Amino acid sequence: MQRIEGFGLARVIDSDDTNYKPGDIVSGIIGWEEYSLLRSSDNLQLRNIQLDDDIPLSYHLGLLGMAGFTAYAGFNEICCPKKGDSVFVSAACGAVGQLVGQLAKLHGCYVVGSAGSKQKVEILKNELGYDEAFNYKEEADLDTALKRYFPEGIDIYFDNVGGSMLDAALLNMKVRGRIALCGMVSLQSLSTSSQGIKNLYSAIYKRLRLEGFLQSDYLHIFPQFLENVKRYYKEGKIVYIEDISEGLDLAPAALVGLFSGKNIGKQVVRVAKE
Amino acid sequence: MQRIEGFGLARVIDSDDTNYKPGDIVSGIIGWEEYSLLRSSDNLQLRNIQLDDDIPLSYHLGLLGMAGFTAYAGFNEICCPKKGDSVFVSAACGAVGQLVGQLAKLHGCYVVGSAGSKQKVEILKNELGYDEAFNYKEEADLDTALKRYFPEGIDIYFDNVGGSMLDAALLNMKVRGRIALCGMVSLQSLSTSSQGIKNLYSAIYKRLRLEGFLQSDYLHIFPQFLENVKRYYKEGKIVYIEDISEGLDLAPAALVGLFSGKNIGKQVVRVAKE
Repeated sequence: MQRIEGFGLARVIDSDDTNYKPGDIVSGIIGWEEYSLLRSSDNLQLRNIQLDDDIPLSYHLGLLGMAGFTAYAGFNEICCPKKGDSVFVSAACGAVGQLVGQLAKLHGCYVVGSAGSKQKVEILKNELGYDEAFNYKEEADLDTALKRYFPEGIDIYFDNVGGSMLDAALLNMKVRGRIALCGMVSLQSLSTSSQGIKNLYSAIYKRLRLEGFLQSDYLHIFPQFLENVKRYYKEGKIVYIEDISEGLDLAPAALVGLFSGKNIGKQVVRVAKE
Repeated sequence: MQRIEGFGLARVIDSDDTNYKPGDIVSGIIGWEEYSLLRSSDNLQLRNIQLDDDIPLSYHLGLLGMAGFTAYAGFNEICCPKKGDSVFVSAACGAVGQLVGQLAKLHGCYVVGSAGSKQKVEILKNELGYDEAFNYKEEADLDTALKRYFPEGIDIYFDNVGGSMLDAALLNMKVRGRIALCGMVSLQSLSTSSQGIKNLYSAIYKRLRLEGFLQSDYLHIFPQFLENVKRYYKEGKIVYIEDISEGLDLAPAALVGLFSGKNIGKQVVRVAKE
């Protein structure tokens, strides 16, 4: 039987690897289970966590973990942000999106996010500092919605969903816009009956760059990320919202919830309390 | 009545611009007509042609004109070619594609082209120096065709057609592959009933870069292009194939022919003989 794996935190109980001692907290790819046997040799992102009283432990899963680093690497290395750029983020209230928007604001950009509920839209505007936000489920036409928030077009689209949102963004990009392809969680992208992306031709006359990326290609900047984002958090310049489910038995429902937009913020499953 | 315009060559009959004297040959955006009134101020690419006995005049329309420069700028500036890269070119026998493949060969790449007839495939292999070529109309499945020629994947796809060929290429790109989006002349791309591009998700896990471009953004390297490509031609390192229609009355048919793949090589319409 193959265990299901995900990015998680664990306390070391026993270890014959001198880098990981009993009592250490580590993050990495860990089984959905109460006890895991981890081999550092096949777990490229296994890391010791530096505990910090000012930072909730679970933040090492999201803000300071794979999701936060995806936002940081993608925004800084793929999007080529400039002060004053107009930035659009989809799934903006999600584990990755919420940091992308806040980094863009810190960078001096105008930032608009989309999300799938009224409550998330409020969080984006009132807690995460997005300039504007909209509920895509209430929009009859995504192209019209984007034109409302970006009358002069989009410089950077951080795409977490693919599908019809990507298609609408393509129509609204400025010349030399950049699209970071980060995730395609939308139902259109996952379904085999997908209509596909119809507006890619826009990329030619607008000279757009679309680039896919994985955070694991940028591990050399992980220490810089950790230092900067910890500092932003401690200085109160960024916040992070989590949705914590208690107990391993809720993990499958939490996973399914991701695809229907049930969670608000980074979805965390706490298997065992500290 | 609005005249139809295209990239053309003309002899100056009269001029009050000291840069263009009667008798000069110029290239630029010119009307489909026997006599044109051109203003250099709205014709950013109006250029004097340096006549050269070793180079056919019409080559300044294709090989040394907008099409050739599109190939040169796109391949060098967008594709980031490295020696040994595997390169795929669609519409490979066309005005742009034939130079892309030859530049890639000169760069030390493995090059495969697709075209829409047996005759074009023969030209690609026997005259243009492509390593391999195939007739996409004879392929039941484009994905299978690409896997046959690129068992280890494609580093660079120079896309002139969009549609289902782009979709198949996405499935066959190597990690960190580059796709230059140059044209989307395929019927799938032009039709409103298009199915769209379904495999863009590949760009994420393969970290692909797709980039649209226009030659007009690279005019600063035009002199370098002219010098290099003229030299390659004179040294016999590249060839160029044209399809010349005689007379302005054949121009509409020649244009329509482009979309059905009737022409072989750069389609030229000669309105008036020198």
